[in-house]
Amino acid sequence: MKDKTLLMIPGPTPVPETVLLDMAKSPMPHRSTEFSAIFDEVNENLKYVFQTKNDVFIFAASGTGAMDAALCNIINAGDKVLSLVIGNFGERWGKIAESHGAIVERITVPYGEVIDPEVLSERLAKDINKEIKIVTLTQSETSTGAVNDVKTLCQIIKEHGALSVVDGVTSVGAMDIKPDEWGIDVLVSGSQKGFMIPPGLSFLVASEKAFEAHKQCKYPGFYFNWSAYKKNLAQHTTPYTPAVNLVVALHTALKMIRAEGLENVLKRHKENAMLLRNSLREIGFSLFIEDDNIASYAVTSIYPPEGISVPEIRKALKEDYNIIVANGQNDLKDKIFRIGTLGFISERDILTVLASLMEIMKKLQK
Amino acid sequence: MKDKTLLMIPGPTPVPETVLLDMAKSPMPHRSTEFSAIFDEVNENLKYVFQTKNDVFIFAASGTGAMDAALCNIINAGDKVLSLVIGNFGERWGKIAESHGAIVERITVPYGEVIDPEVLSERLAKDINKEIKIVTLTQSETSTGAVNDVKTLCQIIKEHGALSVVDGVTSVGAMDIKPDEWGIDVLVSGSQKGFMIPPGLSFLVASEKAFEAHKQCKYPGFYFNWSAYKKNLAQHTTPYTPAVNLVVALHTALKMIRAEGLENVLKRHKENAMLLRNSLREIGFSLFIEDDNIASYAVTSIYPPEGISVPEIRKALKEDYNIIVANGQNDLKDKIFRIGTLGFISERDILTVLASLMEIMKKLQK
Repeated sequence: MKDKTLLMIPGPTPVPETVLLDMAKSPMPHRSTEFSAIFDEVNENLKYVFQTKNDVFIFAASGTGAMDAALCNIINAGDKVLSLVIGNFGERWGKIAESHGAIVERITVPYGEVIDPEVLSERLAKDINKEIKIVTLTQSETSTGAVNDVKTLCQIIKEHGALSVVDGVTSVGAMDIKPDEWGIDVLVSGSQKGFMIPPGLSFLVASEKAFEAHKQCKYPGFYFNWSAYKKNLAQHTTPYTPAVNLVVALHTALKMIRAEGLENVLKRHKENAMLLRNSLREIGFSLFIEDDNIASYAVTSIYPPEGISVPEIRKALKEDYNIIVANGQNDLKDKIFRIGTLGFISERDILTVLASLMEIMKKLQK
Repeated sequence: MKDKTLLMIPGPTPVPETVLLDMAKSPMPHRSTEFSAIFDEVNENLKYVFQTKNDVFIFAASGTGAMDAALCNIINAGDKVLSLVIGNFGERWGKIAESHGAIVERITVPYGEVIDPEVLSERLAKDINKEIKIVTLTQSETSTGAVNDVKTLCQIIKEHGALSVVDGVTSVGAMDIKPDEWGIDVLVSGSQKGFMIPPGLSFLVASEKAFEAHKQCKYPGFYFNWSAYKKNLAQHTTPYTPAVNLVVALHTALKMIRAEGLENVLKRHKENAMLLRNSLREIGFSLFIEDDNIASYAVTSIYPPEGISVPEIRKALKEDYNIIVANGQNDLKDKIFRIGTLGFISERDILTVLASLMEIMKKLQK
């Protein structure tokens, strides 16, 4: 039979039925008190999930749109940006900065590793003229499943005086991240990740210091200009037509997160990821990130056991059990597969994928 | 009773039930053959509706995002842009151009009027050194309901050698527009208008000449960079995570448009708008745009009859009949109201709003 699909990729993630049905309601006019009331609640709950007192801007755009919005608002051509690269999405920061005329220097580690705070400290100590204006980094690197120590890294960046710009696309709502407390200047995330709704919205929170830099930006562009979002947010609305149905979906999803409690949501992600990691080790898989201390709770990268290939596993999971897991990216394609444990994923889902993997191993190793 | 809402604003527009239900399906993984198959059909049908042989890029963004994408890809700081302004959305082009460092000159007419091709010809004739690189214009100006003669204006722009950049946000799928035949260099539109789906997607088609200009653009930014969309479209995919559920909705809506036939869709819009206009005149309303030759088929701006105010009419339509019509914008607020006849609007809907208006007039004029 054609079974229900179990989506276990690091985005899009499964969406609760109630969210899907609320999203399917006829679109409401966005310049209305009804929409503004929903929008206000969404904004309050976004602050809760982002653990910030600052405004969280909602863009009708995918996560990369919010990443672009993070940099186009604070870069002037010729600015120096230091980009900390631990994987594909880390690389993206540098490309975005260059697309706005920045001079980008990269600290790159082999995929699967993370940035050593010492290395960052040493590099910034050499920047005696404070030429480095911005440092970009990734919390949970979706291409590998490795996690940077954002708290320590942002502390070092703050002490130097540069702005920290953090990709929290797959981590906000899945792993602890506290922009205000940790001194993160710009943090972005995406809707189809921890937020349990389909792709199409992305989020950004900026510190006061980042806003000061924004005011010095000569050509911030139009669509992603922070000032327009800030001004309109104070008036309970958006500067341009919002993706109304996705905002309504987000409204429902955020209420679910609030009801579960952020602390419990984060605990669930940790427990699910650790259950998956420990069980995989027991049944003969090895993990791309061995060290649990730098492992993401959003996505886990896995080597297949001896004698079975990644395409065989992915094909069997899909064809026999309608479970979708992700391939590796670039050089890691067909070498690892990745299981997302992000958003609306329960312990039962983890047990399901483990049981399915065990059954598939029996078949394939015969 | 709380009746079903009849949305007659110029976006968001009503969405067919089948489109809403398809949109509510669990999100599919976007890097899959299933999604690529849908994406390919969507792209074919977009070319049909846009009446172009060129690629139509789909952005996860609202219409303003596509407007930004139109200009950020072809402007270098210091470029000269001529902006033809017939209303609010015409003004937006100039602001976007300036946000990317362009020097903007405006030809502005009073709201309700359109650009005289002679005036444009004369201005461009004076530009003997060909300093004007880009001319921006609007087809259907949503704030007034006036329509520029895009065909003639773009012909003049083409002869001069500048690039024409056209806002078709509320006109594509509602009024005839032929980018290839008319020599339009960049044309944009939005999903919550003639496309019968909720807001969150926007579209852009660029001519070869526009692409040549794009190649000379120093800092096109990242998220809206045309080259990335073009390259990925050839590989049946998108450069960044698409708004999957909205693309699925679009797939269904475009099939409906294809089944009705674009010619019939455009005819329906014209007939509905003319029925509305002529009937309103008969029952004592006057039209903000008197001349049918420059009147939009997407939105009609209306003065209330003597002794009744715009807020009264809008309130009564909403409270008594759950019909939502739009207010005027800026200086026209509370002076005119606007009825959208765009997208999934039938002759029956026009009769409904007319019958309701007549009933309201009886009540209010008592």
